[in-house]
Amino acid sequence: MADKLVLGVFVSGGGTNLQAIIDCCEAGTIDATVGVVVSDKADAYGLERARKHGIPAVHVKLGKTGSTAWEQADAEHVRILQEHDVGLVCLAGYMRKIGPRLLEAFSGAVLNIHPALLPAFPGTSGQHDAADYGVKVAGCTVHFADAEFDCGPIIIQATVPVLEDDDGDTLAARILEQEHKAYPQAIQWFAEGRLRIEGRKVRVLDAKTPAEGEAIISPPVEIDQ
Amino acid sequence: MADKLVLGVFVSGGGTNLQAIIDCCEAGTIDATVGVVVSDKADAYGLERARKHGIPAVHVKLGKTGSTAWEQADAEHVRILQEHDVGLVCLAGYMRKIGPRLLEAFSGAVLNIHPALLPAFPGTSGQHDAADYGVKVAGCTVHFADAEFDCGPIIIQATVPVLEDDDGDTLAARILEQEHKAYPQAIQWFAEGRLRIEGRKVRVLDAKTPAEGEAIISPPVEIDQ
Repeated sequence: MADKLVLGVFVSGGGTNLQAIIDCCEAGTIDATVGVVVSDKADAYGLERARKHGIPAVHVKLGKTGSTAWEQADAEHVRILQEHDVGLVCLAGYMRKIGPRLLEAFSGAVLNIHPALLPAFPGTSGQHDAADYGVKVAGCTVHFADAEFDCGPIIIQATVPVLEDDDGDTLAARILEQEHKAYPQAIQWFAEGRLRIEGRKVRVLDAKTPAEGEAIISPPVEIDQ
Repeated sequence: MADKLVLGVFVSGGGTNLQAIIDCCEAGTIDATVGVVVSDKADAYGLERARKHGIPAVHVKLGKTGSTAWEQADAEHVRILQEHDVGLVCLAGYMRKIGPRLLEAFSGAVLNIHPALLPAFPGTSGQHDAADYGVKVAGCTVHFADAEFDCGPIIIQATVPVLEDDDGDTLAARILEQEHKAYPQAIQWFAEGRLRIEGRKVRVLDAKTPAEGEAIISPPVEIDQ
């Protein structure tokens, strides 16, 4: 256990991505453990999920972004993460900006997941924005986090078709299934030391080349040519 | 032949999408004929492709967008399209803005193809912008055209993985293969009368529901869960 990567997961809500991460750690498909879960919301269900698995769950109250209270919370985050020997910070539905101290202390070791194919539809309602825009392909993105929202180097993206009768909620549910696969994959690659940031690009060492036909077209091509 | 949809295709360059459309028309997988090809460039190879298939090929010189010459060209476009009984205008690598007279005369009957997953990477170098940004999934979009570039209601989107060693050119080539499938599909749907614009969304009547597993993840998921 001593050499295993320790994850610190930040949540603001229900924490289904946290649950996927915990489950993969317990199943051994992610070679890491969740050392601590942090939330800005005292009643985030993600904290409850952590406790059910015997994982320390900490509520850190934040002030307004940029305020003294917020800066103190930033320092408190770093203290908590270091106390638990965290090697990788995973933002999993964490709706607040991460502070500069955390980013400095965990440089190149903070991931975020976003429910859209970035750079399209950043912000707090990516799935609903995509549904409203009328795209035919949607998805999710796991990326290295930086001081801005939703714009660090991209590790993995997964796509789903948008169906005729989708609304934001049905589309969000379909994307969420892919999130639960994509985030564990990105974490496992990090745990294996296979991610290299080169400028804006992330290289995955020894990545499989996609097989022929792995491209999708949505709605599916019916034409026979 | 009298009842067959007639296409007017606009090109500025090599016209590989035009070629795909001609080939599908000749093969019968698009139930339409190309009635005329128009270009703003006298030496566009797309014009040559048209002539090889016995299709009228017209160079219409444009002035600066918004100028009197440009407005005259807009009227000339409409005249040419109507002369050839065109029912659907297909922009296929046409690098200029379409004028208001054409858009009014062919309201709801002008399509465009863009080599990116709109709304991401609009503009004249979508594939290269995507490669530079470091996305892991790219693709193309066929949409109804309006007065702005790259923002009308989306009919179809096709995706391709971005591979580790891609640059803009290798990515563009992979996307182009999908363009050659997606554009004929969109045209065939139009020819079948199956496209309905509802606000920003395009409904494809009687569309197949994608099968389970048609979502892709790129780079491919290796994790076993």
